[in-house]
Amino acid sequence: MTQVYFDHNATTRVDDAVLDAMLPYFREHYGNASSGHSFGLIARRAINRAREQVAQAAGASPAQVIFTSGGTEANNLFIRGVSDSLKPSVLAVSAIEHPCVIRPAQALARKRDEKWQLHYLAVNAAGQVKVSEAAAVFATTRPAMVSVMFANNETGVIQDIASIAEAARAQGSWIHTDAVQAFGKIPVNFTGLGVHALTLSAHKIYGPKGAAALIVDPRLPLKPIIDGGGHENGLRSGTENVPAIVGFGIACELAASKMVESAAKTAALRNHLEQGLLAAGATVFGLDALRLPNTCYFALPDIEGDTLVVRLDKKGFAVASGAACSSATPGKSHVLEAMNVPPILARCAVRVSLGPDNTSAEVDAFLTAVRHIVDELKAMNALFNV
Amino acid sequence: MTQVYFDHNATTRVDDAVLDAMLPYFREHYGNASSGHSFGLIARRAINRAREQVAQAAGASPAQVIFTSGGTEANNLFIRGVSDSLKPSVLAVSAIEHPCVIRPAQALARKRDEKWQLHYLAVNAAGQVKVSEAAAVFATTRPAMVSVMFANNETGVIQDIASIAEAARAQGSWIHTDAVQAFGKIPVNFTGLGVHALTLSAHKIYGPKGAAALIVDPRLPLKPIIDGGGHENGLRSGTENVPAIVGFGIACELAASKMVESAAKTAALRNHLEQGLLAAGATVFGLDALRLPNTCYFALPDIEGDTLVVRLDKKGFAVASGAACSSATPGKSHVLEAMNVPPILARCAVRVSLGPDNTSAEVDAFLTAVRHIVDELKAMNALFNV
Repeated sequence: MTQVYFDHNATTRVDDAVLDAMLPYFREHYGNASSGHSFGLIARRAINRAREQVAQAAGASPAQVIFTSGGTEANNLFIRGVSDSLKPSVLAVSAIEHPCVIRPAQALARKRDEKWQLHYLAVNAAGQVKVSEAAAVFATTRPAMVSVMFANNETGVIQDIASIAEAARAQGSWIHTDAVQAFGKIPVNFTGLGVHALTLSAHKIYGPKGAAALIVDPRLPLKPIIDGGGHENGLRSGTENVPAIVGFGIACELAASKMVESAAKTAALRNHLEQGLLAAGATVFGLDALRLPNTCYFALPDIEGDTLVVRLDKKGFAVASGAACSSATPGKSHVLEAMNVPPILARCAVRVSLGPDNTSAEVDAFLTAVRHIVDELKAMNALFNV
Repeated sequence: MTQVYFDHNATTRVDDAVLDAMLPYFREHYGNASSGHSFGLIARRAINRAREQVAQAAGASPAQVIFTSGGTEANNLFIRGVSDSLKPSVLAVSAIEHPCVIRPAQALARKRDEKWQLHYLAVNAAGQVKVSEAAAVFATTRPAMVSVMFANNETGVIQDIASIAEAARAQGSWIHTDAVQAFGKIPVNFTGLGVHALTLSAHKIYGPKGAAALIVDPRLPLKPIIDGGGHENGLRSGTENVPAIVGFGIACELAASKMVESAAKTAALRNHLEQGLLAAGATVFGLDALRLPNTCYFALPDIEGDTLVVRLDKKGFAVASGAACSSATPGKSHVLEAMNVPPILARCAVRVSLGPDNTSAEVDAFLTAVRHIVDELKAMNALFNV
C-alpha cells in the first residue's frame, strides 16, 4: 500500500532537484571547505553560493547567515548565545514556542546563579499573541531577550511578528523569531520583520535534514554554543556539512519560486478537508486565526489522537498527533493548553499538514477513512456499553 | 588534471556503499524519526540499526551512543555539558587538543563567575603526553574533568589513553578522549580505554559530514547544550539527520572490516613517502613517536607551508598546511609550538594524510613534484640573492 504523506510540518521529502545538486558534494567535490587546496575551494564556493541563496530567500544579506545543523540548534544558539553575552535579566517567550526555545529558556531560569527571569506571553483561544498585551508585558518587564515564533508547528497560527518586534525593540529587547514553519509557506523577510534574529530550516522546505540557519543582525551580542575552528565567523565551529548546505540553498530557491502556487494549492485542499471534518463533528483549532495555508489541527470528540493516528496509518495516511518534533517525549500539547482547550478535547488532537504534491483525491479518501474509523469506534463503544 | 587527494585527516570521500545506503532516506524513507506513523517508524529503525553499528565499531553499547552533528559538537558537549553539571573546579586538557576542545575549555576559564581553572598537559618534542607527568598533574590539581585526544590531527601522534585514563580515574576525574582521527585507523575500544566519554566522527571514515557521536559512560554527569524535543535520551535535541546517521553506521562497519588492511597499506605508502622526504632534507614531526599509519607531517627548511600547499595544488596534489579544521582562522600551529619546534621551522609544516586508495605511483609523483618545487624555489632565491 502506498502511504499518503500528510505530515509536511514534521519533515518533507527531499526534492529531486535538491538531491541532484547535493550528490556531487558526496562524490567528487568532497573537500573540507576550510582546506586551502582545490577540493577545499570548490566546497567553499558552494557554501558561499548557498549562503547567497538562503539570504535572498529570507530577505537578508549573506553575511547575516549563520549555518547550523538544524532549527533546534539555531534556536538554542539565540537563547544561549545571546544570554551568555548579557547580564542576567528578563527573557520573554510565547507560551506556544517549540520546546527548543522553551527548554533552553527554562534552563536559564534554573541556573545556580546568574538566574534569568522567564516570562511567558499568553495566547488567546485562537492561539494568537495579542500585540497590545505583549507590548504591555514588554513595557512592564523590560525583557533583554524576546522570542516569538512566526507560525506555530501544531496549529499553523501566524503571529504578527513585525508588530511584536516593534514593541520589543521599543523596550530595547533583542527579538528573535523561529520562522521554521512559516518559511516556504508564507513570505518571510528578515529585514522587513524588524527582528534581530530569525531561524530557518532546510528539511521543512524539501531540503535535507542537517542544514539550517540563524539569520542575525550584526549588532546582536552573540557567543557561540559550539566553538572550535572558528567557522561561520566564529559563531558556529565545525566542518561545514557541504552537501546539506548546498541542498538548503537550492531548496530556498525552489521554495521562493513555488511559494505562491503551493500556498494556493494547499489552502484549497486544506479548506476542502476542513469542510469535511467540520461536517463530521470535528473541532478545528485556530480556525478563526490567520494560519499557514497547509495546516489543519483538529479533534474528533471521544477519539484519542494517538488512536486516530495509528488507525489512519493502517489505512495509508501519515498524520501527527501533537508535534512530531516533541514526540521524542510525548505528552500533552502545551500549545492547546495555552489556548485553554479542555484537556479532554486536547487529547483528541490530530494534525494534518499538506504539501503541494497532495491531491484532492487523497483528501477525499482521507475523509472517507476518518468517517469509517469514527463509525468503527462508535460501534465498538456501543458494543462495550451494552 | 585529476587531483590526487592526500588530505584524508581533513575529510574523506563518501564511500559509494555508504552513499547508496543513505539515498533511500532522502527519497522514499524521508520521515521524521519522531513521527508515530510508518514513515517515522522506518526512520526510527534505521537510526537504531546505525546506533548498533557505531557502538559495535567503538566497543560500546548502543545506549551509550549520543548522535551529534559533528565531532566539534561532540567535544563541546563533553566540555560544556559536563562542566554545566558540576561545581566549577579544575579542568585539564593536553596542549595539543583540537581547537574544539581548547576553545570551550578556555571559555570556562573566562566566565564572569563560576570560573574554572584550566591546566594544560605538556607534550614532549615527539608530541607525546608523558603518562607519569600527566599523573603528577592530576595528583596535584585533582581535575574534575580531563580531555586528551587519542591521535593528533596534525602529527598523527598517538597517546597512551588507557594509562592516562587510569591516572585520571584514580583522582576521581571524568576523562574524555577525542578519537576522531584515531577511529578507523587504529583500534578504538571505548570500554577497553576506560574513558567516560569518547568522540567519533563519520566524515573522517568515508562517511558523510553531519553525523558524529559522543559515546558516554551512563554515570557521566551531562547536560545537553542543544535542548528541545528530548531526542537522544534528552542529551541532544533536534530532528535526527537520518540519512547521515545511516551513512555513519555503514561507514563504521566498513571501517572496522577494512582497518587492518588500510593501516598496512597506508603505512607502507607513508614510510616510502617519508624516506623520500627525509632524503630531500625534510624534518618529519613526531617521527620517533607511535603515529597513525597514514599521517606524515613534515617541513622543508626555508619553504613556507602555505607556499608549498599552493604549489603542490597546482601540480595536482591536495595537502594541508597545519590543520584544515582550524584553517578557518589560520595561524601558527599550537601543536608544533607545544612540541617546542622553532617557529621558523613550524611555518614550513605541511601535512600529508593518506587513504587506502592512494597508490605508490602517486607517492612517487608527489616526491618528484616536491623536488621540482624545491629546485624552482632555490633557483628563484639564488636569483634574488645575486
